[in-house]
Amino acid sequence: MAEIIDTPALLLDRDRLDNNILRMRDKLTQFNVTLRPHVKTNKCLEVTKRLFADGRGPITVSTLREADFFLAAGFTDILYSVGISPNKFAHAARLIENGADLKLVLDNLECACLLADFSRSRGQSFEVLLEIDCDGHRSGIVPQSTLLVEIANLFRDSGVRVSGVMTHAGNSYNSRSIADIEAYALQERAAVIEAARLLNDAGFELSIISIGSTPTALFTHDLSGITEVRAGVFAFFDLVMAGLGVCNVQDIAISVLATVIGHQTEKGWTMVDAGWMALSRDRGTVQQYVDQGYGIVCDLSGQPIGDLIVTAANQEHGIISSRSGRLESVPVLPIGTQLRILPNHACATAAQHAGYHVLTEGRHLDYWPRISGW
Amino acid sequence: MAEIIDTPALLLDRDRLDNNILRMRDKLTQFNVTLRPHVKTNKCLEVTKRLFADGRGPITVSTLREADFFLAAGFTDILYSVGISPNKFAHAARLIENGADLKLVLDNLECACLLADFSRSRGQSFEVLLEIDCDGHRSGIVPQSTLLVEIANLFRDSGVRVSGVMTHAGNSYNSRSIADIEAYALQERAAVIEAARLLNDAGFELSIISIGSTPTALFTHDLSGITEVRAGVFAFFDLVMAGLGVCNVQDIAISVLATVIGHQTEKGWTMVDAGWMALSRDRGTVQQYVDQGYGIVCDLSGQPIGDLIVTAANQEHGIISSRSGRLESVPVLPIGTQLRILPNHACATAAQHAGYHVLTEGRHLDYWPRISGW
Repeated sequence: MAEIIDTPALLLDRDRLDNNILRMRDKLTQFNVTLRPHVKTNKCLEVTKRLFADGRGPITVSTLREADFFLAAGFTDILYSVGISPNKFAHAARLIENGADLKLVLDNLECACLLADFSRSRGQSFEVLLEIDCDGHRSGIVPQSTLLVEIANLFRDSGVRVSGVMTHAGNSYNSRSIADIEAYALQERAAVIEAARLLNDAGFELSIISIGSTPTALFTHDLSGITEVRAGVFAFFDLVMAGLGVCNVQDIAISVLATVIGHQTEKGWTMVDAGWMALSRDRGTVQQYVDQGYGIVCDLSGQPIGDLIVTAANQEHGIISSRSGRLESVPVLPIGTQLRILPNHACATAAQHAGYHVLTEGRHLDYWPRISGW
Repeated sequence: MAEIIDTPALLLDRDRLDNNILRMRDKLTQFNVTLRPHVKTNKCLEVTKRLFADGRGPITVSTLREADFFLAAGFTDILYSVGISPNKFAHAARLIENGADLKLVLDNLECACLLADFSRSRGQSFEVLLEIDCDGHRSGIVPQSTLLVEIANLFRDSGVRVSGVMTHAGNSYNSRSIADIEAYALQERAAVIEAARLLNDAGFELSIISIGSTPTALFTHDLSGITEVRAGVFAFFDLVMAGLGVCNVQDIAISVLATVIGHQTEKGWTMVDAGWMALSRDRGTVQQYVDQGYGIVCDLSGQPIGDLIVTAANQEHGIISSRSGRLESVPVLPIGTQLRILPNHACATAAQHAGYHVLTEGRHLDYWPRISGW
């Protein structure tokens, strides 16, 4: 298959993809909660359709461009998971006019005031989820805050309705063990349950209690009170997830096809035509137990070759060497040899490419385009 | 200007661009050598045209896709600066058939044999530069190596001609002082001069003696014997270059326009809608004297705000805080405030965007598209 593809190129193993999706679906079916996958990882219609046994959605998006694209393809139930800002109100309104059942996210009174004003002046309704900070990693309101009820009250005389709460256990990516992940999962659930109780007690009915990260979703033991789970990277997996113990290296569904262009034999270096432009600059495994450089080097069948990793990357050059640094463990890979490099971070690596060369049972099957931009 | 642009978005200050180009042209004019700019930084026809006082080229490219694109726009003299591999021979041949005066690069006997075979079997001529390793940073043949003459000899009975030597002082990016850069510049020149002498002594006439990196090109004192200089990032500059002392922060021509979406006041965090998708994952300043995080935060006019930098980045979220960590030095930036973030590495940040929103004298002038992929 590989010889027909110019390198570097992004490969997607459809069999692994489907297995990964099934694993998440099976997990959530046990708890009877909805999967609202984050399509920011794949940004691809064909991949996103496979995330659902039937139907189209619900989905989570990271940009309004994704919302436009997936809405046009029939995905109407869309959660835009980045805090909304005033310059995006009109775009959000346009999406709703075009048929989107759009959920916005916010975490502050200042933006809430501006959105309420916009809603009144335009006679435009909006549905909002309040973002909860479950682990201090980024945005959100702490679950005990009186701000939650304050914001919900502020919207009372506007067309904006707080329909739920959402959080993301971003710190679960820094777990050092499965026990850590399980603890983050408890914390993630507890945060939104507490926030929802505060709002309920103040008389607000919530229909969405939304959590999710790939690690916590796959290792949670308790989703009581949760209505939906958001996660994205589970469909592809990557070396960060493998390093956490969330998946095996053999589950990783995407890789970058590269070609050997040279050697610096005395240093144990093999040069390939995939640099950071094809692999991304993501070094997500640098703080993990095993630093995978810019990715694990596999043969064309997807099997890792010794302990080879991409140890350095320039724009269009990758340098492959042994993780151990031992020269004797470096096999000779002739000029022209094609290799598959597993990514640290699927979202970042996939974003460097215009689409996926799709493989099934090792055969080249199709090309699935991605969208990009804002 | 800014309110009309959706965020995040890539801005290009045309006045700074033109000044930066003029600086490099003036420098090389002193030495009477040709500038063969690397268009991998900009990947844009409008920017590339401005690199030349008149005419189109010569240029350096990092992908054959760039070669296709710029050839179609009338740039015929093209150096493809990544070591050629057998799977790209046919594409290179196609470029030549379409009118490209294409120079390939190689650094090993194995690929030379394959190219000679291809050339013979297709009756296709190729022009090749031998890549010289001047500083051990990546690819190339050490300048003293007998391999140089061996490869040139191997091509004698084929359609392949060694027309020159080239090197790139990649390690100059790790300089700690201007004196370091000057030393790398001497080393870069010396390496190709020595390699060329070896080939000359063996009876090979070389028309191209090619060196270049932005730092060495701007601080060299001696280009005798050099025919051309390749450099790319000089047109935009970035924080890595500013950290080296190669430019001022005020020279940086590109920035990412972002909007404030939230705060975590007690932590001194301001959240913006530009994460690593818009800024890139490049952390090129991490080893420099001053670590700029994911970029310096400026107001809309391009002036840095206090000591604010982007200290963390998720896919579509950036976290801005004070470089010093002092909470009292963090100004309040209201929700909706638009900011400009200067990039660590211009090539990497620009690559995350489909084009440039071009400003001159602070006004929004135009949109210049970029190409991407392979």
